[in-house]
Amino acid sequence: MDSEGGTDPGRAPTIYDVAKAAGVAPSTVSRALARPGRVSAATAEKVRAAAATLGYRRSSVAPVLSAVNTRMLAMVVADIGNPLFVDVIRGASAAAEAAGYTMLLFDAQESYLREREAAEKFLGAVDGLVLTSPRLSDSGIRAIAKQRPVIVLNRVVSGLPSVLTDGARGVRRAAEHLGQLGHREITYVAGPEASWADGVRWRGLEEAGLELELRVRRIGPNSPTVEGGAKAARRWAQNPSTAVVAFNDVMAVGFVRGLRALGVSVPGDVSVVGFDNSRTGALTVPALTSVASPLSLQGATAVRNLIAIIGGARSSEQPVVLPVKLVARDSTARAGRGRLMRS
Amino acid sequence: MDSEGGTDPGRAPTIYDVAKAAGVAPSTVSRALARPGRVSAATAEKVRAAAATLGYRRSSVAPVLSAVNTRMLAMVVADIGNPLFVDVIRGASAAAEAAGYTMLLFDAQESYLREREAAEKFLGAVDGLVLTSPRLSDSGIRAIAKQRPVIVLNRVVSGLPSVLTDGARGVRRAAEHLGQLGHREITYVAGPEASWADGVRWRGLEEAGLELELRVRRIGPNSPTVEGGAKAARRWAQNPSTAVVAFNDVMAVGFVRGLRALGVSVPGDVSVVGFDNSRTGALTVPALTSVASPLSLQGATAVRNLIAIIGGARSSEQPVVLPVKLVARDSTARAGRGRLMRS
Repeated sequence: MDSEGGTDPGRAPTIYDVAKAAGVAPSTVSRALARPGRVSAATAEKVRAAAATLGYRRSSVAPVLSAVNTRMLAMVVADIGNPLFVDVIRGASAAAEAAGYTMLLFDAQESYLREREAAEKFLGAVDGLVLTSPRLSDSGIRAIAKQRPVIVLNRVVSGLPSVLTDGARGVRRAAEHLGQLGHREITYVAGPEASWADGVRWRGLEEAGLELELRVRRIGPNSPTVEGGAKAARRWAQNPSTAVVAFNDVMAVGFVRGLRALGVSVPGDVSVVGFDNSRTGALTVPALTSVASPLSLQGATAVRNLIAIIGGARSSEQPVVLPVKLVARDSTARAGRGRLMRS
Repeated sequence: MDSEGGTDPGRAPTIYDVAKAAGVAPSTVSRALARPGRVSAATAEKVRAAAATLGYRRSSVAPVLSAVNTRMLAMVVADIGNPLFVDVIRGASAAAEAAGYTMLLFDAQESYLREREAAEKFLGAVDGLVLTSPRLSDSGIRAIAKQRPVIVLNRVVSGLPSVLTDGARGVRRAAEHLGQLGHREITYVAGPEASWADGVRWRGLEEAGLELELRVRRIGPNSPTVEGGAKAARRWAQNPSTAVVAFNDVMAVGFVRGLRALGVSVPGDVSVVGFDNSRTGALTVPALTSVASPLSLQGATAVRNLIAIIGGARSSEQPVVLPVKLVARDSTARAGRGRLMRS
């Protein structure tokens, strides 16, 4: 972003430029121009004036919006850099292709504004959307769902169909595994703030801890990335435990790297469990023990249900909950071998 | 694919069903329905009859096709599971966003048919395309370029603008690095057949070998995946060398794993260099020495040039060639430490 303000004369002004000039949030610009009734008259006028001054014009969404039966679907992917989405995308694409649809992807880069702006923009080109959106608000998702059929992955938005991994059962399997290995204390390395899936996993671990007589605590929120996991390792060191469950595999990989930088070995000193059983986790050293959700099935189920809804089926508000299992690899071991237990 | 034939009554017939029923290739169906003059009258009739029997109807591409100034771009990604594309996508998306465009992605899964069918389908919804397509033929790409501005990444298609990594210089840097470490023989683990970039890299290594007095040989073609690299390790074992350069990082990661399975250590016995300097290569153990191309800049440059062409600029046939450098990490070491040199 150019903090000096002003627009490069060589490019078309964007909604961000208008927001800056009008002194409002970009999402307000979007609302003011698309649905003026939803902002105050003064704000609407301010935005209109700024847009006019800058020569901003909305992209030609309107004519495209009327298109239907394009036989294209879009999936908003929270972070295309997270390998867990590869299999979700593959499952979704295969199901779309089998039904004669083409699946387009959008990388939201963990930004709710990007999700929203983009979804509104390409809405018209597709027959339906799969949202893997941890960031958009429920009302933001409902606004999109008013215009096109939507199915959400790994969160529940009341009134909309969804496909979920059984996160509570997943962390329970992780806790059982660690308990059986003799661990008595588990640190949960949390995911991003306001993530629906993160809340389910943490509450599930709390419950499992009560039943299995394990002490659980939580570090977070953290960025759901390798870097986020590595940072969390430094926080863990202030109050270490012999066992750790991370919100997802990339965080677990980062956490293991962070521990290594601190001279702590996995699984010698600490056992680490990831979540998602993604491709990357299986490739790292040590190979990651992880809660496996059927990622490809998740994508495929979402698309099949979405296509049924596009075809006129009534959408169920009951989420489809997919099973999980624990895949034990080399990042977990019996407690009591490392320094943390001896001290 | 259902080898029993017939269509599931619950889903719409696809172009693949029509191809099967008519006994022709799916691409022939596509041509027969879209541009009947390009197939024989008999074939056109056979395809029309099969389509009518199955109740196949082409998606409503035509009305959408007329849409222009959608301010959306699409990038056809060869394999969304290859981490090298993450940074290309990020660079492209950022450049698109900065100019007020939205970037949609399509995962071609290394299939030329998928690339072609999909590109024709979503062509109408976008103002231009970035193709990272190793599989589409030159004429297939030119057919797309007749309908929308196109820019190609890492290959040259005569008459079309492109952005390239300097692959020849990249392998030269790798060869120099290995030569300085005392290696005298390099095996090139090739990428997929008919890959433009693979040809450039192998020829570059051959030339560097002549100048630097290194013996070079080639194993391949191989699938440009972790599995492809692991399989190549078994072929390498029949005629081992102390140094290896792989077509890309994911293959190098697979190759190192394949060597480990054979009891060969990296870099103790063998030095391995990857290509692309992708995120995954930096995370593996040993961390991968790799030829770094500015992936994010590659995506950004492609999009900026594409937008200029959409805006009326004349496209240059001269490819934009981006520089490379070698990032030395832990997968390369002095020759002569391992068993291969001692024997």
